[in-house]
Amino acid sequence: MEKVNLQDAFDSFDEHWSPRLAGELNGQAVKLARAEGEFVWHEHEDADELFLVQSGVLRIEFREEPAVTLQSGEFLVVPRGVEHRPVAEEEVEMLLFEPTETRNTGDVEAEETETDLERID
Amino acid sequence: MEKVNLQDAFDSFDEHWSPRLAGELNGQAVKLARAEGEFVWHEHEDADELFLVQSGVLRIEFREEPAVTLQSGEFLVVPRGVEHRPVAEEEVEMLLFEPTETRNTGDVEAEETETDLERID
Repeated sequence: MEKVNLQDAFDSFDEHWSPRLAGELNGQAVKLARAEGEFVWHEHEDADELFLVQSGVLRIEFREEPAVTLQSGEFLVVPRGVEHRPVAEEEVEMLLFEPTETRNTGDVEAEETETDLERID
Repeated sequence: MEKVNLQDAFDSFDEHWSPRLAGELNGQAVKLARAEGEFVWHEHEDADELFLVQSGVLRIEFREEPAVTLQSGEFLVVPRGVEHRPVAEEEVEMLLFEPTETRNTGDVEAEETETDLERID
């Protein structure tokens, strides 16, 4: 059992939209990501997804309802099947909580797609 | 979809060792708890449990290995079947992530046992 310091973990990588695996439990994963700019529109058919902002401001856009803007210390659960697009005007550090096998771009195959996440030591 | 501000959510209750339900996804729950003092020794037979400290210092003791001390912004996953005791010398605010039905005192029936968690609005 090793604890994880979130800020040290975020400081250990630079890439945007490339989630790292920081912990696993009950088939779910804690993933950490840096983000800047607009991500691709996508949905996760079988997975609800939690976004918790560590630093910066993350806007999550939806097709049919108003966007939700998350500041540091705020989280949102995006239910399965809801198309969404994360947007960060400036760099954001965010924690994701979702099933370990959930793909970052969901149903969409894109340049940003990551399937084999690096683990944070 | 409603976002949750963690600090506002913690500020909405005072009780110790009485987790509130702040969000649910994929059969798992985000639970928020205030803690002070020593909790009961217990284990969760079928559930891994994540502790993330928001404020204060949480020591998690184990029967057969050294305790782990979590500061603000640090998390630990306690695997299923590992007996543990959370201890807070001073008040702690912590986020728990675990299956929704996981009981706070696990296999132990105690005064502190809570089964029907209040939901944070």
